[in-house]
Amino acid sequence: MTDTAPFADPDGLTRGDLETGTVFAPRFDADGLIPAVATDADSGEVLMLAYMNAEAIRRTLATGEAHYYSRSRQALWHKGATSGQVQHVVEMRSDCDQDALWLKVRAGGDGGCCHVGYRSCFYRRVTPAGALAAPNVPYLATD
Amino acid sequence: MTDTAPFADPDGLTRGDLETGTVFAPRFDADGLIPAVATDADSGEVLMLAYMNAEAIRRTLATGEAHYYSRSRQALWHKGATSGQVQHVVEMRSDCDQDALWLKVRAGGDGGCCHVGYRSCFYRRVTPAGALAAPNVPYLATD
Repeated sequence: MTDTAPFADPDGLTRGDLETGTVFAPRFDADGLIPAVATDADSGEVLMLAYMNAEAIRRTLATGEAHYYSRSRQALWHKGATSGQVQHVVEMRSDCDQDALWLKVRAGGDGGCCHVGYRSCFYRRVTPAGALAAPNVPYLATD
Repeated sequence: MTDTAPFADPDGLTRGDLETGTVFAPRFDADGLIPAVATDADSGEVLMLAYMNAEAIRRTLATGEAHYYSRSRQALWHKGATSGQVQHVVEMRSDCDQDALWLKVRAGGDGGCCHVGYRSCFYRRVTPAGALAAPNVPYLATD
């Protein structure tokens, strides 16, 4: 049993309330996580996809800075706490069935997001042949 | 064991190759799925977050139309096959560690995406107090 307080249980809502109501009842998976897409609030570019637990959502709402849950480190992750790439949340949205979140953010520090050095983690295209194409997103060092 | 052919095994790549190489090796989860974010290729708006299995990726690459895997129906899902809201893929990207995909799409039919009737599934804001705010995305019937 994961700690999902203070959020409502989505299974306690009618489908109508879940989809068109005002009660925020994020549907966490078996690991207590919900996927969150972060986009650049100005360019609209998708920056990253990460996961939040209830504590990450609570801290994000309380501070206005994006918090995630690092699955590799198994710990709360205040994005940018060490890199300076703090994500200031301009708007947060839920999807229809409340099993995904969307954060529009402005990145602090050098404006980057990805540990590899790109502005967005999505710096490679998948070609129709099923290969990855050379990076096509600004690398910060040469931006 | 899920069928992930013809894609490479991400655990068979070095971290360098995984992050900056040209081999597409999507990291499927224990259920054989990888999350995929679909955005409107023109407005940049996030439309939906769904999941793809290897077959969905194969068919998406082969047809140029987004295919997903429906977790609720446990079946391949050719988005728009019945609704007409076919998603024509303008570009597909992978993220740094290849455990998430981003599809830039143009929607056919009435241009919608969400079964509730909105253009995007993300039609409600999460307020700082942790509630959902009234829809702020065009409802297609009144668009």
